[in-house]
Amino acid sequence: MKKILIHLEADSKASVFDQITAYDAGVDQVIPYGGVELEEVTNLVYGAMFTRGGDNLKNSAIFIGGTNVPTAEKLMQKILATFFGDVRVSVMFDANGSNTTAAALVRKIAYGRDLKGKKAVVLAGTGPVGIRAAILLAKEGCEVFLSSRILARAEEVCKHIQENNKVTITPVQIAGEKDVQEILDRGINIAACCGTPGVQLLDQKVWAAASSLEIIADINAVYPLGVEGMKVTDNAKEREGKILYGAIAIGNLKMKIHRSAVHNLFESNNKVLDFVEIYKIAAQMEG
Amino acid sequence: MKKILIHLEADSKASVFDQITAYDAGVDQVIPYGGVELEEVTNLVYGAMFTRGGDNLKNSAIFIGGTNVPTAEKLMQKILATFFGDVRVSVMFDANGSNTTAAALVRKIAYGRDLKGKKAVVLAGTGPVGIRAAILLAKEGCEVFLSSRILARAEEVCKHIQENNKVTITPVQIAGEKDVQEILDRGINIAACCGTPGVQLLDQKVWAAASSLEIIADINAVYPLGVEGMKVTDNAKEREGKILYGAIAIGNLKMKIHRSAVHNLFESNNKVLDFVEIYKIAAQMEG
Amino acid sequence: MKKILIHLEADSKASVFDQITAYDAGVDQVIPYGGVELEEVTNLVYGAMFTRGGDNLKNSAIFIGGTNVPTAEKLMQKILATFFGDVRVSVMFDANGSNTTAAALVRKIAYGRDLKGKKAVVLAGTGPVGIRAAILLAKEGCEVFLSSRILARAEEVCKHIQENNKVTITPVQIAGEKDVQEILDRGINIAACCGTPGVQLLDQKVWAAASSLEIIADINAVYPLGVEGMKVTDNAKEREGKILYGAIAIGNLKMKIHRSAVHNLFESNNKVLDFVEIYKIAAQMEG
Repeated sequence: MKKILIHLEADSKASVFDQITAYDAGVDQVIPYGGVELEEVTNLVYGAMFTRGGDNLKNSAIFIGGTNVPTAEKLMQKILATFFGDVRVSVMFDANGSNTTAAALVRKIAYGRDLKGKKAVVLAGTGPVGIRAAILLAKEGCEVFLSSRILARAEEVCKHIQENNKVTITPVQIAGEKDVQEILDRGINIAACCGTPGVQLLDQKVWAAASSLEIIADINAVYPLGVEGMKVTDNAKEREGKILYGAIAIGNLKMKIHRSAVHNLFESNNKVLDFVEIYKIAAQMEG
Repeated sequence: MKKILIHLEADSKASVFDQITAYDAGVDQVIPYGGVELEEVTNLVYGAMFTRGGDNLKNSAIFIGGTNVPTAEKLMQKILATFFGDVRVSVMFDANGSNTTAAALVRKIAYGRDLKGKKAVVLAGTGPVGIRAAILLAKEGCEVFLSSRILARAEEVCKHIQENNKVTITPVQIAGEKDVQEILDRGINIAACCGTPGVQLLDQKVWAAASSLEIIADINAVYPLGVEGMKVTDNAKEREGKILYGAIAIGNLKMKIHRSAVHNLFESNNKVLDFVEIYKIAAQMEG
Repeated sequence: MKKILIHLEADSKASVFDQITAYDAGVDQVIPYGGVELEEVTNLVYGAMFTRGGDNLKNSAIFIGGTNVPTAEKLMQKILATFFGDVRVSVMFDANGSNTTAAALVRKIAYGRDLKGKKAVVLAGTGPVGIRAAILLAKEGCEVFLSSRILARAEEVCKHIQENNKVTITPVQIAGEKDVQEILDRGINIAACCGTPGVQLLDQKVWAAASSLEIIADINAVYPLGVEGMKVTDNAKEREGKILYGAIAIGNLKMKIHRSAVHNLFESNNKVLDFVEIYKIAAQMEG
C-alpha cells in the first residue's frame, strides 16, 4: 500500500520544495493542492479519512504548507476539527518552513549543550520562525527576550505566546545600535537572528565586544546577513571567541529534520506534528 | 509501462477519495485535473489517445468524477465523442460515487437472492444513486416504484429512464406517512432508501408492520438515518423480521467495487464503465 | 532517489501528452503546474535548486510546455536567469511539441543523406516548427528558403533568425500557385511543409513536375494534408519519383526523440535542451 501525502496550501501553486522533500523522505505519492480555501478542507480531509481502514489508515497523511503562516494555521485548525475519534490521519504543519527551520535553528544552539539558565535573545523575532524559536529556547530552560523594532509588536507577540503556549518571553524594542548594546549588556549568552533576508542586525564590533555572548545563529541567507562577519556556511565556527551558525548550516539540518518528520508521519494515524513535536523528532534524530 | 489514470472532474479540486482509491486499485500514477471545462476535454483526451500505441494503449485510462453528476455526464459524452475508431482508452464514470454506490446498494439486495417478480420501491429516488438503483433493480427482474415528495419530479425521472434505458419504472409521490403506508401496502418486498443525509424516510412502526416487506437498505450515513431503528453497520441484520443493510455495510462494498472497476479499466483500451458495466463487475467480483 | 520532472506551462491544464511521455521516458514522478505566471517561476525553480545537493541534483529537472511558444520562451528565460553557478537543474523546452517535432521533421529528411549544398524550402514556415526546421536545415548545410503568404512576415522571421541564431534564411512569399512554381523552379531539392492542419500547400501536379525536387515532408495530420497525394503514414514512400514523409511517420519519430530527450535530461544537472540540443540527441539516437 502506497504511502500517500496530501499536500494542502493556500498559495496558488503547491510548493515544489515540499513535494521533492516528501519524496526524498520516502513518500510514494504526494497529492498536491494549491489555492486551498477553508471551505474545501472538509471534503479533502474526508477523502483521507474514509478510503483506508484500520491499520492501513496510517499510510495516508496530510502536510500543511504555504507561505502565509496564519492562513495555514487556519487550515490546520479546520483539518483537526474534521477528524472524529480514531478516524483521522497524521498531520504535519510546516508553512513557510517555519517549524523545521525553527527546530533546526534551536537544535544547532542546543546540541551538546545545557541551555538551562542561559539568557537568549531572538532578534527580529516576531515572525513565524522567531516566535517558534523563542518558545523552543524557553522550553530548553533559557530566559528568552524577543525583539522587534516596534515595542508594541514584540509585546503583542509575547502576550500571544503566554496565552497559547504558557511560556514567558520578555519583549524588547531594538530600534537602533544603542538598543542592541543595551540588550546584550543584560548578560545575553545566545543571539538567534530571525530578520528579513538582506538586513543586518548585529555589527561585528558590537557582538565581538559582548563578553557574555557565546553563541550566534542567523537564518538569513541573503547578503548582507543578519550578523556582520558571519558566513552562511559557518557551522559551529569560532569567530571572535563566539560560536557561529549560518543559514546554510541551519538549512542543511532543516532539510534532515523535514525529511525525518515526514517519515515519522506514517508511523501511526494520529500524529499532529507541530513545532514542538518536530523539535522532539529533531532531537531524537541526533541520538 | 506505468498504468496511468487521468482523473477529470468539474469541481475545482480533484477528489482525494477517488485518487487514493485508484492507487489502492493498482494504478501507478493518477494525473488529476479539477475544474475541467468542456472545451478543455479534447486536448486532454488527445494526450491519452496519442502517447501510447497498439497494445500499450490499455495502460492509459480516464476516470470521470466530481460532485455534480449531470455536469460529469456532459464531460463523459465529450470524451466518448473525441475517440475515433480503435484509437481510444477505457473510461470509468463515477461522479459523486453514484455508480459504485448504486451497484453496492443493489448487490447487497440481490446477492444470493432471485429478485425476479419482487416489488421494490426506491424511496427519495430522483437523485443519481436512486435513478441508477431503480434501473438495476428493474434489470434484476423487479417491478420498481420510484418515489419523490413531488409527483411531477418522479414522473419526469421515470420518463427519462424509459427514454434512455428502455426500462419501465412507476413514479409515486410520497409526501407524508400515509403515502408511505399506501405504497408499502401494494405488496412491496424491497425498500431502497436514497434520501438526503439526516432525513428519516421510514418510521420503525411502519416498516415493522409491512407484512410483505423483506429487505430494507439505506445509503444515508448521517443520523437520523433514512430508516428508524436501523444501524449504519447493519449488514444483513435481521430486525423485526426484515433484513437490513446500513450505509457502512453498503459503503464497504462500494469501496471494493470501486477498486475492482478501476482495476478492470486497464484490461483493454475500449471499456466504458458506466453503472450497468460496474454492476456486472460487482456481481463477477462476488463469484 | 526518484527522478522528478517539474512540468511548467502557461496553459491552465498541464499537458496529458507531455506527462505520459515523461513517465514512458523513465521519469519516476512528474510534478505538473498549469497556469504558471512569470512571477511564480522563481519560487518553483528554487524548489528544484535547493532540495537536493551535489550529485543528487541531477535527479530533478524542469520541462517547459504549453501551446503558446513565445510565452513558454519567456518562462524559459526566467528559469535560466533564476539559476546561479552550479546550483541549477537541467531544463528541456518543448512548448507545443515544437522542438521535438522540428527535430523529427529534419531528421527524417537528413537521415542517411548528406544535405550539404541542397536547396530547401520550408513552406508556411513562420510558426515555431517552421522556424526551428529552417535553422536545423541550414545547420545541415542547406540553402534554406522560408515562405509565408505575407512577405513581411517571412522577412521578419528570417531577420529574427539571423539576429538570434547567426543563420541566413531567405524569405519568400507564396500567395498562390504561381509563387509555388516559381520557388520550386529555383532548383529546390527539399520541401518541408509546416502549414496549418487541413490546408493544402502543394498540388500534386506541381510537385510531381518539379524536376529538382527529391524529398517532401509534411507535419499536417488533418486532411486535406499539406501535400496532395501524400498519406500521413508515408515513411520514405516513393511517389512520382519523390521521397515522401507524412505526419504520422514524423510523429512516431517525434515521440522517440521526446522520450530520448527527457531521458537525457537526468544525466547531469546542467543541460539546457532547446531545439539544437534536442536535434543532436535525435541524431545520436539513430546511431
